[in-house]
Amino acid sequence: MAPLRIALAQFDFPVGAVAQNAERIAALIAQARDVHGADLVLFPELAISGYPPEDLLLRPSFLAECEEALRRLAQGVHGIVAVVGWPQAAGAVVYNAASVLRDGAVAATYRKRELPNYAVFDERRYFEIDPDGGACVFDVDGVAVGLVICEDLWFAEPLADTARAGAELVLVPNASPFERDKHAQRDALLAMRVKETGAALAYLNVVGGQDALVFDGASVLADGDGHIHPAARAFEDHWLVADYDRSTRKFAPVSWPADGDESREALAWRAVVRGTRDYCEKNGFSKVWIGLSGGIDSALVLAIAVDALGAQNVTGVRLPSRYTSGLSNDLAERQARAAGVEILTIPIEAPFRGFVEALAPAFAGREVDATEENLQSRCRGAILMALSNKYGGLLLTTGNKSEYAVGYATIYGDMCGGYAPIKDLYKTEVYALAAWRNTVGGAPVIPVEVIERAPSAELRENQTDQDSLPPYDTLDAILYRYVDQEQSRDDIVRAGFDAHTVDRVLRLVRISEWKRHQAAPGPKISHRAFGRERRYPITSGWR
Amino acid sequence: MAPLRIALAQFDFPVGAVAQNAERIAALIAQARDVHGADLVLFPELAISGYPPEDLLLRPSFLAECEEALRRLAQGVHGIVAVVGWPQAAGAVVYNAASVLRDGAVAATYRKRELPNYAVFDERRYFEIDPDGGACVFDVDGVAVGLVICEDLWFAEPLADTARAGAELVLVPNASPFERDKHAQRDALLAMRVKETGAALAYLNVVGGQDALVFDGASVLADGDGHIHPAARAFEDHWLVADYDRSTRKFAPVSWPADGDESREALAWRAVVRGTRDYCEKNGFSKVWIGLSGGIDSALVLAIAVDALGAQNVTGVRLPSRYTSGLSNDLAERQARAAGVEILTIPIEAPFRGFVEALAPAFAGREVDATEENLQSRCRGAILMALSNKYGGLLLTTGNKSEYAVGYATIYGDMCGGYAPIKDLYKTEVYALAAWRNTVGGAPVIPVEVIERAPSAELRENQTDQDSLPPYDTLDAILYRYVDQEQSRDDIVRAGFDAHTVDRVLRLVRISEWKRHQAAPGPKISHRAFGRERRYPITSGWR
Repeated sequence: MAPLRIALAQFDFPVGAVAQNAERIAALIAQARDVHGADLVLFPELAISGYPPEDLLLRPSFLAECEEALRRLAQGVHGIVAVVGWPQAAGAVVYNAASVLRDGAVAATYRKRELPNYAVFDERRYFEIDPDGGACVFDVDGVAVGLVICEDLWFAEPLADTARAGAELVLVPNASPFERDKHAQRDALLAMRVKETGAALAYLNVVGGQDALVFDGASVLADGDGHIHPAARAFEDHWLVADYDRSTRKFAPVSWPADGDESREALAWRAVVRGTRDYCEKNGFSKVWIGLSGGIDSALVLAIAVDALGAQNVTGVRLPSRYTSGLSNDLAERQARAAGVEILTIPIEAPFRGFVEALAPAFAGREVDATEENLQSRCRGAILMALSNKYGGLLLTTGNKSEYAVGYATIYGDMCGGYAPIKDLYKTEVYALAAWRNTVGGAPVIPVEVIERAPSAELRENQTDQDSLPPYDTLDAILYRYVDQEQSRDDIVRAGFDAHTVDRVLRLVRISEWKRHQAAPGPKISHRAFGRERRYPITSGWR
Repeated sequence: MAPLRIALAQFDFPVGAVAQNAERIAALIAQARDVHGADLVLFPELAISGYPPEDLLLRPSFLAECEEALRRLAQGVHGIVAVVGWPQAAGAVVYNAASVLRDGAVAATYRKRELPNYAVFDERRYFEIDPDGGACVFDVDGVAVGLVICEDLWFAEPLADTARAGAELVLVPNASPFERDKHAQRDALLAMRVKETGAALAYLNVVGGQDALVFDGASVLADGDGHIHPAARAFEDHWLVADYDRSTRKFAPVSWPADGDESREALAWRAVVRGTRDYCEKNGFSKVWIGLSGGIDSALVLAIAVDALGAQNVTGVRLPSRYTSGLSNDLAERQARAAGVEILTIPIEAPFRGFVEALAPAFAGREVDATEENLQSRCRGAILMALSNKYGGLLLTTGNKSEYAVGYATIYGDMCGGYAPIKDLYKTEVYALAAWRNTVGGAPVIPVEVIERAPSAELRENQTDQDSLPPYDTLDAILYRYVDQEQSRDDIVRAGFDAHTVDRVLRLVRISEWKRHQAAPGPKISHRAFGRERRYPITSGWR
C-alpha cells in the first residue's frame, strides 16, 4: 500500500480577513495537491476567520461571510481532501467547526467538544457544544481519518470516541498561543493520548501575532507507537509534509523544518519579534518610532524592532532633559549606530519649561515632587506621538512586566504607544534576553555598558530605580509568585521574603490596576500575562 | 397564621472587600431581626465578595477568605434566617452559591445553575455548574422557601424545579447591571415565571458602581397571582421590607420606597451619577478635576460630578489656546459659577509653543496638520494630570460614545483620566440628558448657549465637529445600528443612509479600536457599551 501523504499548513490566517484567508486557503490546497502531492491537507483551527475573532463572532454578517467563504472554497476542492476550520452558525448558535472538503462539497463537519474559557480564552462566550455532536471519521484512500480540535485533545474522551469510531490517524488543528515551557507539556500529552488510543496524531498549530497573542506553530507528529517527532520550527510559516504508513501507523517526514534553536531564550526572542512584526504589518505600519533612553528596556525594544522590521524602518529618538546623563546620550547613540538605525535628538527642555511656566500660578508654594517627573515623561510621550502623527509609523512603548506590575511608569508618558514588545518580560528577563541576543548573529547589538549600568528613569538628579523599588531580583521573585503563581502574601513571606517588602510590592500592584487597564497590548510570553489573561477589577477592596 | 416578614438588603457590597462586607452583613442581619422584625433576610448575589470579583476568584487565598467569612457569619445568626451569596470553592472548582444561615450554622447551600457568559458576564471563566445540584427549599415558620440566583430566573427549569420541590415563595438574589429599558423586560419575565409556577418571587438586586458597571437595585416583588409590585427606587441603598401572606401568596410592603422619577432620562442620570460617585469613593478620591471647554460634554460631566460629589469637591479647569473663542471661556466660567465650583484657568500656550519649538527641526518643511491639534489636546491632558498628581483628586475624562466610536478624541490628550462618566452616551443622548437635567432641581445647571452652540474641538480656526464628521443625528443613528444592534453595512444602507457616509463611519469605528483599548472605564448605560461588553480585536482584516 502506498503511504498517505499529508500536508499541514503552518501559516498565518489573520483575524477577520475572511475573503483573503479563503483565497489563500484555496491556493494552498492546490499547492498541497500539485506541488507536494498530498492526499490530505490540514488547516488550523478557525483558519477562515482567524483566531481569536472575538466579538466579530457576534455579527451575523461576519458569520454569513465565513459560511459563504467555506461553501465556495468547498466547490473548488478536487483531487485532494482538505480540512478547514471555521465558525459555523446554525440558527442562533455558533460552533467552532472544522469541515472536510472533497469532490467539490462539504463531506463532513466536526464540532469542537471542549471549549476553553480560561486564561486568554473566551470560547464559551461565542460557541456552543453540540449535544448531538460526536466523532467525525472519514476515509482517505483506505485510511480512517479522525478529527478533534485543540482543547479536545486535553480531555480523554473526544479522542477516545474518535478512535472507537475507527480512526487510526487523527488530525488536530489548533490555535494555541505561545507560552514559555508549554511544548514539553504538549508533547507529554500527545504521548499519553497515543498510548490511550493507539491513534497516530498530526498536530497542526497556527502561526502569527494577533494583538497580545503570538501563535508559534511548532506543529508536531506522534506515531501510533507513541514516538513524538521533532516539532516544526516555531514562529515560522512552513508547509509541513509527511507520509503516513498505514501498516506501521508511523510518519515519515518529507518536508519538516525542525532544525532551529529552540532554547528558552530563542523562543522568547522569536515570540516578541514575530509579535511586533505582525502587529505592525497587519495594522498597516511599515515603520516604528522608539524613544531611546540609553537604558536596557529601550535598547532591547530597539533590537527587537530591527529584527522584526529591518533597521531602515526603525527610528530611535533621544529625548534628553536636564537630568539625562552624558552616558545615556552616548549609549543611545551607540545603540542606534550598532543597530544601523536613524536617530533623532529632541530635547524636552522647551515644552517642559512651558508646562512649569503655565502651572506656576497653580503650583505656587508647592514643593517639586513626582508631578514634575511625570511631566517630563509626558513631554517625551507627546513628542514621540507627534512624530508618529506627522510622519506615520507606530510608536513602540518600552515598558517591561516589572514596571507594569508596580506602576513604575508614567501613564500618558512613557506608556504612550500602540504596542509593547517586552510587556510580558520581567526586568530580570529583559537582562537575560539582552545578554542572549548579544551572543547570536555577529556583533553585540546592545552595548555591554547598557546591560551593566544601574537602571534609572533619570527624572531627577542621581535617581536610580532602586531608590523607589526593591532590587529587581527580589522584586521579580515576589511578582512572579504573586502574579504568575497566584501565591498569597503569607505564602510569599513564608518563602523567606521580607514582610514589609512584600506588602509594599503587593500594594503597588493593586494600586496600578487602573494604569494597566489603559496600557497598550504586548505579546504574551508567560503563563500569566497582564491584559486579557489577567482580568482584575480596578475598584477592589481586597488587601 | 401570621405573615412571614422578609427583609431585602438593597445595599452596596464592594468588590473584594470581604472582611468589610461580612461585617456589614452581620450588622444588617441583626438590624433586620431587631429593627424590622424580619423572619427572613436576603442579601444579593455574591454579597461576600462583591460582584464581579473577576480574577480575584482565581486566587486561592481570596476564596479561602470568603469561606472563612461565611463560616464566621453563620455562627452569629440566631433568631432569623439569612440568605447570603458567596463564591464557594469546593476542591478545584468554584460555585456561585447562596447559603441559608440559621441557628449558628449553614443550613443549606444553593449553587447557581445558569452561568451567564455573554455581554459583560464571564461566569464560565470562574464557576462550575454542580451536576448534582438542584433545588434548595427550606422551611421558615411553616413557609416552604426556595432559592434561585439571577440568571437562573431567565430559564424556566431552575424555578420550575424549585416549585416542584415544594417552594411557594422563592428568593432571587441578583447582581444585574443597569441597562436602559431592561426593567420592563425583567418585570415581564417575573410575571411569566409566576404564571408557570405559582410561586411568589422576591427579587433583590444589588446597588452601586463597580468600574464600568452600575447596579441599580430596583428590587421587586411578584405575588403568586402574577401581580408585580412597584420596584424599589433605583440606584439607592434601602432596606426593603414586606410581609408575605401564605394563604394568598401575596406580599404587603411594609417599607418599600418606590416613589422616584423612574423616567428613562432620570434613570440614566442616576446611573452616571452613582457610577461616578462610587468609582471615586471606592478608589479613595474625594475630589475630581474636569477640563472645561465651554462645550456640552464637559458641561454635562461637570453637572454629573457636582451631583455625585458636591460642588466643593469639583474643580473646573479652563485650558484656553489661541483657538479658544471668547464665548467658550465665558461659557466655561458661567457653568462653573452656576454649579458653584472653583475654576482655574491655565493657558496652554507656553507648553504648546515649547513643543512647536522642540519639534521645529524635525518638522522642518512640513505642513501644519492634525499633529499640532493633537499636541494642544496633549498639553491639556498633561496639565490636568499634573494638577491631579500635585493635589490629588481624580481626573474625569469627558468623551462621549460617539467620540469613542469614531476616534474623534486625542489619545493621551482629552482621553486622559481615570473615569469617563458619559462614555456610554451618544452625543445626541448627551444633549437630551443635558436638557433633561436643566428641567429638574431649580435653576438650569447647563447654560442654554452651551446646548445650542455648534460643537467644536477648537483645535484650529473656525473648526466645528461637522467639518470632520456627519451631523450627529446621522452619525449616532448609524453608530447605534452598527455598534448596538450589530447591523451590517448593507443593512444600514438599506435603511436609507448614504452609502459613502456609512462606509466612512464604519471605517472610523474600525481604525479606532486601539484607542478604545487604552480608554478609561465609564458606566454602562446601553445594551452594548464599549469596554468589557464589546470585545473587538485591534488587529482585524474584516471590512
